[in-house]
Amino acid sequence: MKKEIISTWLRELQEDICQQLEAADGKGKFVEDAWERPGGGGGYSRVIEGQHIEKGGVNFSAIHGMMPKKISDKLGLEQATFFATGVSIVLHPQNPMVPIIHMNVRYFEMDNGIWWFGGGIDLTPHYVNEKDAQTFHRKLKKVCDNHHPEYYPKFKEWADNYFYVRHRKETRGIGGIFFDRLDKGKENEFTKAQRFDFLKAVGKSFCDIYIPMLEDHKNDAFGEQEKNWQYLRRGRYVEFNLVWDKGTKFGLDTDGRTESILMSLPPMARWQYMHQPTPGSREAKTLACLVKEKDWITHTIS
Amino acid sequence: MKKEIISTWLRELQEDICQQLEAADGKGKFVEDAWERPGGGGGYSRVIEGQHIEKGGVNFSAIHGMMPKKISDKLGLEQATFFATGVSIVLHPQNPMVPIIHMNVRYFEMDNGIWWFGGGIDLTPHYVNEKDAQTFHRKLKKVCDNHHPEYYPKFKEWADNYFYVRHRKETRGIGGIFFDRLDKGKENEFTKAQRFDFLKAVGKSFCDIYIPMLEDHKNDAFGEQEKNWQYLRRGRYVEFNLVWDKGTKFGLDTDGRTESILMSLPPMARWQYMHQPTPGSREAKTLACLVKEKDWITHTIS
Repeated sequence: MKKEIISTWLRELQEDICQQLEAADGKGKFVEDAWERPGGGGGYSRVIEGQHIEKGGVNFSAIHGMMPKKISDKLGLEQATFFATGVSIVLHPQNPMVPIIHMNVRYFEMDNGIWWFGGGIDLTPHYVNEKDAQTFHRKLKKVCDNHHPEYYPKFKEWADNYFYVRHRKETRGIGGIFFDRLDKGKENEFTKAQRFDFLKAVGKSFCDIYIPMLEDHKNDAFGEQEKNWQYLRRGRYVEFNLVWDKGTKFGLDTDGRTESILMSLPPMARWQYMHQPTPGSREAKTLACLVKEKDWITHTIS
Repeated sequence: MKKEIISTWLRELQEDICQQLEAADGKGKFVEDAWERPGGGGGYSRVIEGQHIEKGGVNFSAIHGMMPKKISDKLGLEQATFFATGVSIVLHPQNPMVPIIHMNVRYFEMDNGIWWFGGGIDLTPHYVNEKDAQTFHRKLKKVCDNHHPEYYPKFKEWADNYFYVRHRKETRGIGGIFFDRLDKGKENEFTKAQRFDFLKAVGKSFCDIYIPMLEDHKNDAFGEQEKNWQYLRRGRYVEFNLVWDKGTKFGLDTDGRTESILMSLPPMARWQYMHQPTPGSREAKTLACLVKEKDWITHTIS
């Protein structure tokens, strides 16, 4: 399969998701910036500032060239020309009752025959809603199960470990799925087409996962307390992205396009020294949920 | 000189600075948290939320124990028991016309005879004020010149390079001084007492440097535009601290006390995709100033 087929599909995914998100927001429109990478390739960054999506980015990129030594060393690879394409999304909603969502689907190959797919979807509710958490994980499980029975348990655990704010000892949200270096497998059990089919299914699931949650909660009542908590949780999101997220570090470290990399940061965030939610409050209950290895599909929040 | 003399002096410095800052704020009071480090030692974190200092931290710590291998490797040292003490300050003012300030003064020793002092002061104005920038650097130069003619030029350059937001290609603010590993020198040209005298002078200069600026601008008029710009500049402060600041990374990486390390983060910060100040505006003039190697003592802003 030619790499252009994959990048073309991803560019169309970006377009499709943007259209659906604009319709869901009902007011905001995506603004697109085209950018070029000095070493080869480039991308299209799209950002929306809407009535329900306070700040959202849906980025596409397809870059190529000689791999910087810094990167090939980090990846444990021989230096060679490479090609990388992907779509990256982060949406920060206006209403604190709507969760933050992140998705990334990507493909990488080198001229020495190495190739792999990677990506993931994870959800960061400001307030954990049991039913939504269950639906979210059920939908992800279904997408995974359609492709391989081991995908969901493995990628769910991977997300728990990846989206972890280590210095806070809490997960970024309720996890989701995360996967990387999906290649032909140790015993050639996967074709590139099969892996790509899975990636496509993940990409296509995004709107079906997020838009109903947005619709359900975009007009939920909230006050100053909920808005304040949203700002504090966004502060944690900033901490994760700038301190621990490998994609962000990698991008900033290799002179990527800063504004596209940091489109994941929230419009407004807050830090308060030693903030502790009131025991028994919804904020405290949410915080208590932000741990690894929770089975969200059968879990019940007290 | 015994290490206790240094840590006692630093703890008194913390007390002295807190008293002066409380008087300058006129309303806020520092709240102190004592904490212990499982491996040995601990600290006293002090945080103020005042009328002019929106959020400020003045932290003291004195820790000891066996150096974690991770750290001795990073520092290029043999593993040994160590002692480290310091005072760290970050103040985020309410009024956007008052700059953010940071100071750190610290001492480190190991039982194998190695010792050094480190620290620095740097200023991050939301709006660069020529006169204040000049006064700030003049005062720092005077403190430095009293101890060694090479200190100011060397430590000023060091600050330019250290407080640099690489992915934005801009300095964090107008710099100041930064120094590390001040030991007896290659040819034994310094005694520990001389280095400590310099550190004391830096520590003692803090209030004389910052409080007049706070007094001068705490009641300056500002509107929504200035407040918004302050939030955006604070966003950059967050980016520097979480992505590039070695002290922060080191602390989070070695399971330091998160709330003390991150007291440097602002109460509220903002990110806006592709934000560009209006050409010719005060915001644009400030941004144009955020470059290395500017001679602030003789510099004139157009």
